[in-house]
Amino acid sequence: MTTRYTGLRWLRVALIGLALSCSLGLPKLLADDPKPDPAGTATGVASDVPGFIVTAPAELSADDKKDKDKVKAYDDAKKAFDDYTKQAASEPLAVKLADNVGHNRVAVNFMWTLITGFLVMFMQAGFALVETGLCRAKNASHTMAMNFMIYPMGMLGFYVCGFAFMFGGLGAIGTMGGYAGLNHEITWTIFGKPFGILGWKGFMLQGAGYDTAAFALFLFQMVFMDTTATIPTGAAAERWKFSAFMIYGCCIGTIMYPLFGNWVWGGGWLSQLGTNFGLGHGHLDFAGSSVVHMQGGVIALIFAILIGPRYGKYDKNGKLVHPITPHSIPMVMLGTFILAFGWFGFNPGSTLAGTDFRIAVVAVNTMIASATAALATTLYMWWFKTKKPDPSMMCNGMLAGLVAITAPCAFVSAGGAAIIGIVSGILVVEAVFFFDRVRIDDAVGAISVHGVNGAWGCLSIGLLADGTYGDGFNGVAGNVAGVFYGGGMNQFWAELIGVTTCLVTLSVLSVIVYYIAEFTVGNRVSLEVEIEGLDVPEMGVPGYAGMVMDKQSETPMMKS
Amino acid sequence: MTTRYTGLRWLRVALIGLALSCSLGLPKLLADDPKPDPAGTATGVASDVPGFIVTAPAELSADDKKDKDKVKAYDDAKKAFDDYTKQAASEPLAVKLADNVGHNRVAVNFMWTLITGFLVMFMQAGFALVETGLCRAKNASHTMAMNFMIYPMGMLGFYVCGFAFMFGGLGAIGTMGGYAGLNHEITWTIFGKPFGILGWKGFMLQGAGYDTAAFALFLFQMVFMDTTATIPTGAAAERWKFSAFMIYGCCIGTIMYPLFGNWVWGGGWLSQLGTNFGLGHGHLDFAGSSVVHMQGGVIALIFAILIGPRYGKYDKNGKLVHPITPHSIPMVMLGTFILAFGWFGFNPGSTLAGTDFRIAVVAVNTMIASATAALATTLYMWWFKTKKPDPSMMCNGMLAGLVAITAPCAFVSAGGAAIIGIVSGILVVEAVFFFDRVRIDDAVGAISVHGVNGAWGCLSIGLLADGTYGDGFNGVAGNVAGVFYGGGMNQFWAELIGVTTCLVTLSVLSVIVYYIAEFTVGNRVSLEVEIEGLDVPEMGVPGYAGMVMDKQSETPMMKS
Amino acid sequence: MTTRYTGLRWLRVALIGLALSCSLGLPKLLADDPKPDPAGTATGVASDVPGFIVTAPAELSADDKKDKDKVKAYDDAKKAFDDYTKQAASEPLAVKLADNVGHNRVAVNFMWTLITGFLVMFMQAGFALVETGLCRAKNASHTMAMNFMIYPMGMLGFYVCGFAFMFGGLGAIGTMGGYAGLNHEITWTIFGKPFGILGWKGFMLQGAGYDTAAFALFLFQMVFMDTTATIPTGAAAERWKFSAFMIYGCCIGTIMYPLFGNWVWGGGWLSQLGTNFGLGHGHLDFAGSSVVHMQGGVIALIFAILIGPRYGKYDKNGKLVHPITPHSIPMVMLGTFILAFGWFGFNPGSTLAGTDFRIAVVAVNTMIASATAALATTLYMWWFKTKKPDPSMMCNGMLAGLVAITAPCAFVSAGGAAIIGIVSGILVVEAVFFFDRVRIDDAVGAISVHGVNGAWGCLSIGLLADGTYGDGFNGVAGNVAGVFYGGGMNQFWAELIGVTTCLVTLSVLSVIVYYIAEFTVGNRVSLEVEIEGLDVPEMGVPGYAGMVMDKQSETPMMKS
Repeated sequence: MTTRYTGLRWLRVALIGLALSCSLGLPKLLADDPKPDPAGTATGVASDVPGFIVTAPAELSADDKKDKDKVKAYDDAKKAFDDYTKQAASEPLAVKLADNVGHNRVAVNFMWTLITGFLVMFMQAGFALVETGLCRAKNASHTMAMNFMIYPMGMLGFYVCGFAFMFGGLGAIGTMGGYAGLNHEITWTIFGKPFGILGWKGFMLQGAGYDTAAFALFLFQMVFMDTTATIPTGAAAERWKFSAFMIYGCCIGTIMYPLFGNWVWGGGWLSQLGTNFGLGHGHLDFAGSSVVHMQGGVIALIFAILIGPRYGKYDKNGKLVHPITPHSIPMVMLGTFILAFGWFGFNPGSTLAGTDFRIAVVAVNTMIASATAALATTLYMWWFKTKKPDPSMMCNGMLAGLVAITAPCAFVSAGGAAIIGIVSGILVVEAVFFFDRVRIDDAVGAISVHGVNGAWGCLSIGLLADGTYGDGFNGVAGNVAGVFYGGGMNQFWAELIGVTTCLVTLSVLSVIVYYIAEFTVGNRVSLEVEIEGLDVPEMGVPGYAGMVMDKQSETPMMKS
Repeated sequence: MTTRYTGLRWLRVALIGLALSCSLGLPKLLADDPKPDPAGTATGVASDVPGFIVTAPAELSADDKKDKDKVKAYDDAKKAFDDYTKQAASEPLAVKLADNVGHNRVAVNFMWTLITGFLVMFMQAGFALVETGLCRAKNASHTMAMNFMIYPMGMLGFYVCGFAFMFGGLGAIGTMGGYAGLNHEITWTIFGKPFGILGWKGFMLQGAGYDTAAFALFLFQMVFMDTTATIPTGAAAERWKFSAFMIYGCCIGTIMYPLFGNWVWGGGWLSQLGTNFGLGHGHLDFAGSSVVHMQGGVIALIFAILIGPRYGKYDKNGKLVHPITPHSIPMVMLGTFILAFGWFGFNPGSTLAGTDFRIAVVAVNTMIASATAALATTLYMWWFKTKKPDPSMMCNGMLAGLVAITAPCAFVSAGGAAIIGIVSGILVVEAVFFFDRVRIDDAVGAISVHGVNGAWGCLSIGLLADGTYGDGFNGVAGNVAGVFYGGGMNQFWAELIGVTTCLVTLSVLSVIVYYIAEFTVGNRVSLEVEIEGLDVPEMGVPGYAGMVMDKQSETPMMKS
Repeated sequence: MTTRYTGLRWLRVALIGLALSCSLGLPKLLADDPKPDPAGTATGVASDVPGFIVTAPAELSADDKKDKDKVKAYDDAKKAFDDYTKQAASEPLAVKLADNVGHNRVAVNFMWTLITGFLVMFMQAGFALVETGLCRAKNASHTMAMNFMIYPMGMLGFYVCGFAFMFGGLGAIGTMGGYAGLNHEITWTIFGKPFGILGWKGFMLQGAGYDTAAFALFLFQMVFMDTTATIPTGAAAERWKFSAFMIYGCCIGTIMYPLFGNWVWGGGWLSQLGTNFGLGHGHLDFAGSSVVHMQGGVIALIFAILIGPRYGKYDKNGKLVHPITPHSIPMVMLGTFILAFGWFGFNPGSTLAGTDFRIAVVAVNTMIASATAALATTLYMWWFKTKKPDPSMMCNGMLAGLVAITAPCAFVSAGGAAIIGIVSGILVVEAVFFFDRVRIDDAVGAISVHGVNGAWGCLSIGLLADGTYGDGFNGVAGNVAGVFYGGGMNQFWAELIGVTTCLVTLSVLSVIVYYIAEFTVGNRVSLEVEIEGLDVPEMGVPGYAGMVMDKQSETPMMKS
């Protein structure tokens, strides 16, 4: 009891320190910035109408004036600008209308980003149900509560500093009015090339962060972060102290997630592999196979290794596996449906634009891959493994397909999505069996679903991107094409570097965070608590009061 | 065990054969087609702005030139075109803007179609909960898993060929940019009139199918098909072999659903009853009372008849009914709420257009009918039947109202919706009691909810359509008006023909599919398995491990 | 049995009387009204494009013509109008386009209003789960069924007359095309100032109500009303007769909710406190802390007091509290997630406009407050109260934060939202303990969550509104600023008057409705029924058939 209290005091000190340190750099960074628009009334104007306004070309320098081509280009641009200016003077109503057309366009994108973000938020409920359903009834209250509390814990960390670290150097938020106040990326120059390391704007959504477009971006990205955050709670379930979980909850949104996130989505070095080194479009991850899922999977892996298997899962010699039965199949399946539903926000929403009609392809690819994966898993289990169409594996199969298609969803055809799904459906089964063989006890299969298939999803871009989409992504011209569509190996190498970086970085961070919790409050509950179930000792209430439980069947080892 | 395995081998052969046969006709059909737009960058232009562009009239033939009226019409049209052309030259900015206005309009419609489609997909979870909650706990895992697997099974069949059969001859997708690549309808000419029978474009979403508008349409229509697909699993629950269910799962999305679907929504002969024979606007079904619900209800009826009642439901003489109590009322009610929520995608989404403001009327009508139906059912049970406000009947009442309003939702007033709901609420109670009297054991009331009320919904258009909407539907001018609004009987006959066709066609198809399963894997589990519960024998895991069940109360017959 | 039947006969008489009285005033009110647009084809035109059309100024009277300033203003406006008219003649394509731009804008707002409304409707499921989960298993069927039936019951009352009472005098529906047919507010003149009392248009959505914009407004507002409606079922749960609940169900949507609702949102006197008496912007409540939540909380308070505590909750001397354990923590937490999800419809949707980009700030504030509240509650319980991170209190904490931020969500910064959340998180704990101390037994904490925090939410506008938004709200110029942002006390007084009015009005109405039920069917079940559980006696079916319950643990008093 004393130990836990000490840990919580630590927690409070850490929180205050974090808040202070974040606010230090603030005033300096606010000078000469684009003006934020907190009411949103100045957002969405004629310049948001693609190709409408023609801007004046930059004046040529004396040197440039000697270059015939440059002079010609300047003259052409100047003429276009003069023509536009003259025409605009004779069409004042059209010009006035253009502001409203731009506003409508931005409104469509705001709505799309927000509504899809809401769907992603709802995935928290899906994860909570899947993880709790897969655990035993005696831990239902505890597992559910971890999945519940990670939502506010992760969110507040992301609000205080995580968002600023990840997106503080993003630059213009193109689809939502082009606000460019998040413009401070800490960059190192290595080999004469810029390597973005961390953003540094938008702390606590104040100053440069108090803008409607920045808020919309925050909402969408926060729910992505919280998806990652909730993954490891499954792997370490049924034996993790709630106080240790709370310490993890403080770390995930503040720094664990945003670091790699900045490198891929915030303008950091992995997104610059294309412009810096010609590796395709750099590490592409359309909606987060690596940023969201693999990060969560790697944390799950490290935590599952360090905290050790649940009592009763393996024999003393470590060879025999006693399967622990999910306590509620309906709960697991409802959760999976909620996740598949929310994934329609996750992947199509990642355009941040309802005006990009590729959203239809993204949505269909997402569901096709989930279907082929679920079917592949089911038949693989039925025909080759347990000889039954295992319900919880069906769910993990569908989730594996969803995880895998997340990175490539915008770049592949429906056929490509079907193939990615089939591979992931088999991969997840083999991974689950593999981790059991090596005695890594993952209570819900999070490592196999999110880690292994997150990696596979990224790599599949390098193989199956079909060259119909992706022009200009990460500043690289041309559509994205994988090995099988004549794109060569460069894109694949970029994906491999990204995946490897994710594995290494998150492993290190996870070990650090685990031991912070270990040396303060301790990670694992006592054996007595584990056998009794964590609900009453840790949370004070059982999951299901008034229902009679079969305690015997809940702890397999006790029989043998 | 051997039997089932044989069945699965059959299944594999069938799947491969299907894929082969579908790909045969492909290359020939791709010639001279509208260019698909997989990136979506060419979709949504000035021509999507209603009334903006004036096109040149077709030149008159020598014969036409002798007809004064035709010459006059040509001259007028030519003048309008010339005026537009001249004006466009002097307003280049407005013309440029028009492309963006069209793009915004199409974006609104894409978003509407996709988001409402997502809501419909979530209904899978609702059906799973309603059906599982209404069954006994010992079959929870099995019932839930059928509802889960039907989602990918149905989807993949629709992807491989079902979508092509149903919508391959649709023509222009008007609200989403007008892409017209799905243009091959197999048509028979009878009595000198064209009868559309089956579409033949868009197999596996390749070729003509790889277009953003086609993908959006696929997503929306796939989730509708999957709604139908999941209905019969309830009727045959608690006694259906999972392998037999899988065979059904292969058939529903590929051919069972798309055939009648093509006739009503894909440009087929039932939609042509108006233009061919003057029967109102042809068989109208705004959002699927017949296409989705009645199809599912008829399959449920045939399967329930053929598979026979559950052990213990009826006495040996077949007269006395032992009610089987739902194992979880909260689950049934949560499922019903999810369905009512998803129905806001189902009905309003069926405009495929957020720019059609009738969506507000559709949405309100949908909920009004669900409310009057739920209330009517509750009071009817309470006052006239069991003297209690029966919770599971409340749910079936609300669902009945939702099913019934699905076809007429856009054509009636709120008052009309209220009446349709009241009728359906009483109808569903009488139907449930009727089917029990005739010993057709439908575990969840699917026949009464979806079959009976699906038919009622279609017929109600012919009675209550109020003449404020529907101009141009199925190529017929004028708003839709029913008998009570001065529209005469023609629309009613069209609905009656549609409903009858649905009953006959799906009965035949269901019998065929049932016996395919019967002769390969067999449909019904053994009596021992049925009494024990299907969960462990069929799926390998119980629905609720660790909870103590009252087996005695689960099988009523065992007491007597 | 006889008593209940009598009550139901009363109910029928009341329903018929209500319908008759509503239809009486109808014909007279239809004269000279704006034309409703049931098909929606005339809605959304150039006049919906902000600042596009310049209208002619009203002619000056003879008196006005002597006033130089007025003449100058007239001349300027006349010139602007002439210029516009002339320019419009030379830009016919732009003018034609303007109609479509306006249509797109209105379409965005229709979609936003409808989709967010759908999300709010889904909150019914959340409330059902939270309330049922917090109750005992033996009352699961009954509690769930109340939460289910309130949806249709409330809706139909609102449809018949509630909507007309609340919004019948609203005036133009600005964001959705400006339809102004709901224009009849019954107004008293007191102190020479107009006091709006009740609307009187739109009964049964007929006549002036049969318009697409009015239907969209109805949908959005109906689901808000139903949120209020479902709150008191939790407070009176586990002892309330279903027939008494049904009488309440008839009253809530018809008159209990719409009265105060009209005063705040329908143009009534509380919204006029600013224009009439200079009290800031009048009583502001952006999304319903007072209109929706506090109304529900006050009804809950009165009902909980009048019906008395559950058997076994308190000792005979009333001092000792026996906590009644929630029967399903997963159910409570799933419900809370659904509510938090639906709240993204509740608050951001209240703009009725996707073109108002403040929606992003509203959405983020909503989730930030929910997070700080959940965390504050958890730590407050853990450190200072029960020494455990109580799962059901976590949920009540999050809900308290959501309730509190509902009124101020659009007017405060993210930092303000965080503070509002923290306060509400602590407030809810203290309130729950307080009501237990004074023997007011609220089965689910509805009074503390919705009542107390509803009041706090409104008051917080007066303190923390940051002066960046709200210009023109309730007809008052300038943004809304609270005490801490230099706005003075006026806004706070307006909020305090609103909150006090809510408390008084709803207390009176609740007492009346309670005693109507008391004198007809009686409110409380017998002690035998309460001890057995209400499921079988009241509803005819148990919540969980086939599962073995621990009846002993369900009724704490029976042990002592």
